Amino acid sequence: MPRTLDRTDLIDLALGAAFLGTGGGGDPYVGRLMVQQCLDEGLSVTLVDPDELDDDAFVIPTAMMGAPTVLVEKIPSGEEAIHSLHTLERHLGRKATATMPIEIGGINSTIPLVVGARLGLPVVDADGMGRAFPQLEMETFGVYGIPAAPLVVSNEYGESAIIRSDDNRTVEWLARGVTIRMGGCAYIAEYAMSGADVKRTAIPRTLSLAIRIGRCLREAKAEHRNPIAALLALLPETLYSYGRVIFTGKIVDLVRETRNGFSLGRMRIAGNDGHDGAMDIEIQNENLIARVDGRVRAIVPDLICVMDTETAEPIPTEQLRYGQRVTVVAVSVPAMMRTPEALAVFGPKAFGLDEPFTPIETLEPA
Amino acid sequence: MPRTLDRTDLIDLALGAAFLGTGGGGDPYVGRLMVQQCLDEGLSVTLVDPDELDDDAFVIPTAMMGAPTVLVEKIPSGEEAIHSLHTLERHLGRKATATMPIEIGGINSTIPLVVGARLGLPVVDADGMGRAFPQLEMETFGVYGIPAAPLVVSNEYGESAIIRSDDNRTVEWLARGVTIRMGGCAYIAEYAMSGADVKRTAIPRTLSLAIRIGRCLREAKAEHRNPIAALLALLPETLYSYGRVIFTGKIVDLVRETRNGFSLGRMRIAGNDGHDGAMDIEIQNENLIARVDGRVRAIVPDLICVMDTETAEPIPTEQLRYGQRVTVVAVSVPAMMRTPEALAVFGPKAFGLDEPFTPIETLEPA
Repeated sequence: MPRTLDRTDLIDLALGAAFLGTGGGGDPYVGRLMVQQCLDEGLSVTLVDPDELDDDAFVIPTAMMGAPTVLVEKIPSGEEAIHSLHTLERHLGRKATATMPIEIGGINSTIPLVVGARLGLPVVDADGMGRAFPQLEMETFGVYGIPAAPLVVSNEYGESAIIRSDDNRTVEWLARGVTIRMGGCAYIAEYAMSGADVKRTAIPRTLSLAIRIGRCLREAKAEHRNPIAALLALLPETLYSYGRVIFTGKIVDLVRETRNGFSLGRMRIAGNDGHDGAMDIEIQNENLIARVDGRVRAIVPDLICVMDTETAEPIPTEQLRYGQRVTVVAVSVPAMMRTPEALAVFGPKAFGLDEPFTPIETLEPA
Repeated sequence: MPRTLDRTDLIDLALGAAFLGTGGGGDPYVGRLMVQQCLDEGLSVTLVDPDELDDDAFVIPTAMMGAPTVLVEKIPSGEEAIHSLHTLERHLGRKATATMPIEIGGINSTIPLVVGARLGLPVVDADGMGRAFPQLEMETFGVYGIPAAPLVVSNEYGESAIIRSDDNRTVEWLARGVTIRMGGCAYIAEYAMSGADVKRTAIPRTLSLAIRIGRCLREAKAEHRNPIAALLALLPETLYSYGRVIFTGKIVDLVRETRNGFSLGRMRIAGNDGHDGAMDIEIQNENLIARVDGRVRAIVPDLICVMDTETAEPIPTEQLRYGQRVTVVAVSVPAMMRTPEALAVFGPKAFGLDEPFTPIETLEPA
């Protein structure tokens, strides 16, 4: 049954998507306000389960592309992604019957909700990353055979580029070049696919999962239970079946810069509460790898979520600050994100890391 | 009457286009070989006079985009520009009835000949710059109201981007970004227009003019006459009615780099043969301004052609060398390139030069 989202769902979604986004995907607060504006105007957001999609449905995912650090200072109107979707429809000569997130992180879990609300299209409750990743080819869509191209990238002036290449990495490379020249932040429509392909290649029910995670954190906090403990207890019921706290401490060093269209950086967390030494986390939009004394404690594509120890709120990369007291949670990703094909596209090597992928379940606790 | 080109025409065209290109537009030798290959295969190149075009003809200009310094090491097959033209035809839902150069400099005077020969399309004997310029918005097409977009940029892998913007400078900016990510050199189709618009906005008969200039230089040399004097005597019969030698000497300093997709640089020529002091010429793909002791001796958009004093061959920017003995010739451009609208787009200010445009006829001789 399709489900319409209310205001509380949006608050929970922003919180849960910030968690699943592992630091990336843009400020979820901005995204939430954009959808809320739609509800204020009397529009509605309808989620549709992937299993309920017709096999010949035509789904065009929509998203923000660029550095989340830029997005904070260049708030979108929502029309940018709609322009991309319409341009792709015209290019393909076919109207979309639904839109979908390409990643379930920060603003990119809400951009399709704005598009869906404004165009009266349902939003598929699924995505192509099961988290956030910094590059467009890092999609289960692509891993399992869907071409990213043709991709449309648009800006706030209605200017656009339609990118065509058989190589999803080249699509990323060229679209990123255009995004940089559009000011470091732009809006895309790509990976157009049938309902049958959604069922085959998307990570299912991640929008509703994000809402569940957000609600779990919110309710535990309201009831004075430990939100992080409540969240870890929830995970075994989901495709993200294993999670644990891998470190707690205080950010004592933080380097971050916006370069080549990405937010790059690293942080050092000095341990407390029984966590000796210091944890180092490397960032490319998202948190990629966590090490203690050079030994891996969690590694991409498993989730590495840096949460505020006091508020239990996930902290997006661009909001990290020196002196923050944080709790680092690592979570296993769904099995279809850990296959050899998937790891070849978004495993550690794709990020230039030397360490092999090792599931969080089998790594030694910090 | 349409005219077909023979081998000698191609040799003359390459020479004349190098002259009109004022240092830019890419190596004319490479371009000539590409067209000659077409003739070797039994294909033919047909020039059509703009006045003979039907008003409702549909003309899609084709060109190389990028740094000529890159082109030298990355020779095109000719299919790249054809791919761009076909992609633009599909995007617009209309077949081209002719192609045309966007500039009459170096390789960009011959790319449309390759496209025309391979597709059996006539090539309009006209162009949009009347010389070479480094940026796409610097077209009389655009000055007189033709939009550059949609523009298609393609590479040797058949990868492409279709750029859309109402602002021709933005089209240039975005297409340049894609070109850089394609390796610094790519192939475009843009400024699609009717035959009526060609007649209204193009600089007429510049391909046949380039052939005339090349023939004039070649014949004078064969007959042991002074080729540069012969050329200056030819100009009054053309739209480029005034020319003179503004300096002779030896290149004693040369700085050149490929940056942001352009060939940038400057040279200093120590004078001889009655030319005292030194001439400084600034380059952005093309020669932009010539000064002696800080005083302007020729300025864009008038032509500044650096020629080898011994061979009377025009020297493309990327072939300049320390120690070359050179003769600098300045030439007036057609009146439609000197209007206020034209100077606003490709006058000195567009290149960040402080000096106002002053016609070469009215500047003091060096």
